[in-house]
Amino acid sequence: MKWQERFAGRMGSLASSVAVSELLKLAEQPDVISFAGGLPDPKVFPMEAIQEAMDRVLAEDGPVALNYGPGTGYTLLRDWIAERMLTKDRAAVSRENILVTSGGVEALHLICMTLLEPGDTVVVGAPTYLVALHVFRAHQVKMVSIELDENGLDTEVLEQRLNELDRQGERPKLVYVIPSFQNPSGLTMNIDRRHQLIKICERYNVPIVEDHAYADLRFEGKPIAALKSLAPDRVILTQTFSKIFAPGVRLGWVAADSSLIQQLALCKIGTDTCANTLGQRLVYQYASQGGIDAQVSEAVRRYRHKRDVMIAALAEHLSGIVTWSRPDGGFYVWLTLPESSDSEALLRYAIENEKTAFVAGQVFFADGRGARHLRLSYSFIAEDQIEEGIRRLANAIKS
Amino acid sequence: MKWQERFAGRMGSLASSVAVSELLKLAEQPDVISFAGGLPDPKVFPMEAIQEAMDRVLAEDGPVALNYGPGTGYTLLRDWIAERMLTKDRAAVSRENILVTSGGVEALHLICMTLLEPGDTVVVGAPTYLVALHVFRAHQVKMVSIELDENGLDTEVLEQRLNELDRQGERPKLVYVIPSFQNPSGLTMNIDRRHQLIKICERYNVPIVEDHAYADLRFEGKPIAALKSLAPDRVILTQTFSKIFAPGVRLGWVAADSSLIQQLALCKIGTDTCANTLGQRLVYQYASQGGIDAQVSEAVRRYRHKRDVMIAALAEHLSGIVTWSRPDGGFYVWLTLPESSDSEALLRYAIENEKTAFVAGQVFFADGRGARHLRLSYSFIAEDQIEEGIRRLANAIKS
Repeated sequence: MKWQERFAGRMGSLASSVAVSELLKLAEQPDVISFAGGLPDPKVFPMEAIQEAMDRVLAEDGPVALNYGPGTGYTLLRDWIAERMLTKDRAAVSRENILVTSGGVEALHLICMTLLEPGDTVVVGAPTYLVALHVFRAHQVKMVSIELDENGLDTEVLEQRLNELDRQGERPKLVYVIPSFQNPSGLTMNIDRRHQLIKICERYNVPIVEDHAYADLRFEGKPIAALKSLAPDRVILTQTFSKIFAPGVRLGWVAADSSLIQQLALCKIGTDTCANTLGQRLVYQYASQGGIDAQVSEAVRRYRHKRDVMIAALAEHLSGIVTWSRPDGGFYVWLTLPESSDSEALLRYAIENEKTAFVAGQVFFADGRGARHLRLSYSFIAEDQIEEGIRRLANAIKS
Repeated sequence: MKWQERFAGRMGSLASSVAVSELLKLAEQPDVISFAGGLPDPKVFPMEAIQEAMDRVLAEDGPVALNYGPGTGYTLLRDWIAERMLTKDRAAVSRENILVTSGGVEALHLICMTLLEPGDTVVVGAPTYLVALHVFRAHQVKMVSIELDENGLDTEVLEQRLNELDRQGERPKLVYVIPSFQNPSGLTMNIDRRHQLIKICERYNVPIVEDHAYADLRFEGKPIAALKSLAPDRVILTQTFSKIFAPGVRLGWVAADSSLIQQLALCKIGTDTCANTLGQRLVYQYASQGGIDAQVSEAVRRYRHKRDVMIAALAEHLSGIVTWSRPDGGFYVWLTLPESSDSEALLRYAIENEKTAFVAGQVFFADGRGARHLRLSYSFIAEDQIEEGIRRLANAIKS
């Protein structure tokens, strides 16, 4: 059968992701030092504690952990999440406000299913998380890109664009932001910017999706209030266990108004019925013994040091040639190349001639910008390879 | 915020599922003997072997098993699936034809994302799997319902409907069938019916989605060829590990043309990025040691006996009053009540007055039919409760 004649319209919108995947695959050659992937460092997984938690789940509750669970998530895990958000993020949520999802991506997918029609408009950062762009493309919505400055999403530009759209009779269905240690820029919205964002979204009556993925991985400085704590009703928070526990369980959550949670759960019946029960019980067992808090402390220590090594190497090899963000947390450094650079061409050159890789900037923009930028991740790469990788990258840039 | 004003159009289509959930919840009262849920019997999970497999995964490959995996699935598991389909189902597939999914429901969701637009038409059985109906509703497609007789989907009726639609210039985008031990009817398409179905779908050039969920749980008689083996190009097979292993890992797969697999994988980036890696490695470790084959044999023994107990009890208490299907495999018996019965009213009565529950028939039909029918599941209920439950059901029916 000629399947390609049968593909739905959305597949056309997703074609650009094929090119992204192929570009990312280039980085996977064996002798390449890669700053491309956003994977956690496997050394942050405390295998012994995880093994113990799994033993306990299987020994104490095995047959239940291996069967279907509630569509909204394992009740004790929902309670643990709500309690954590209350204490850590000062977000007034309880079990009814929490839906356990199959990772942060499914959280966003369910939000789109519940709130968006094809042709709707959403606001995203320029740059933003590339898989979020993919999710929005799959839902065939229009994206309005708002620049970032050193304090994250530029709310003056946002207000101007919302005003323009308003005069055209158009109102975005949501604003998607990653306020802390943004992927890919590493930038964080300061508290004024957060208040500003909420004020503008109230004025234009637009809901906010707050992607909280990296917020717990703060290396220094005081935590900045989550949008969810500042505007509990307007903000839908998505979170993943991938950065505070491990991606391999594919778990995350949405925190939102209970009426919205019920609809998201209704959509989830038709995506995968429930998040995997075994993983949920493992995470709960581990988390309730203090595993996640301990792991996050150790992860912060490890990633902070990796960031320091990367920033020092950048200063040594690339000062005066390129500029970079210095993240206070998370996984990423964002490089800005000289004007009229082509980061995709640089990537191909760097892989071939210097055996080093990164993610070229364009994939993080909804509108094709980004040729001057590239993302470096220090999370997965072995510490002792960072300096050598940056040296190679500098060679490629200078060539 | 008034979230309900913001829900997308599809949420209206899903409203009927809320009523279904509430009805299913009624069955969960503590002293009710319930034939409602389609859960596997937890006694079929060989806890020791599963624990051993998990120990090995965590000990040998823990840090990899806890990280992200390939979007198409763990390579060794894809190979194991392809090999199993080759030997067991005589379906000529290899790794490129397999996508590991987060269960059978996600498999169908991804197929819908890839092939369907709102307003498209799909063909379903009357009755059929209620979550499949939910998935199709979420994708806002029109459903054409085709009756079943004792040999499964009535292909004469199908041909007539396709012909009618064709004259209206309408062609369904797919036919969804569960050929073996259908949920909810327990019925199986014989080989003539299968050939007939393929011939008709070839004539009208419609792809077939073959839900293989229960096919391995055959109690007696010779296996009947999978549609996938008879028409490899036209058939998209979906399968779940929930019935041959355990639902708690939320894993399944799609077997299809490699060009289609690539597009499904592209959609999967935006649903949950990859199926949970830990579960995939557990399943592979367990399966490659012969665990699944051994488990299926034991499950068949156990479910066959439960079916026998249920059929005997029905014969004792309800002969001449209702009729029922006698499944050769799977989880379900389908009851047909006297004309002008109301199975939903019967359910409410049975729960309240006889403390027994089932699933009322309407939820398995796209078009509101089914008031004369009800589904009894013998899979989860303890063996020694089946006879008493059927006695109570008979009381309710006779009252």
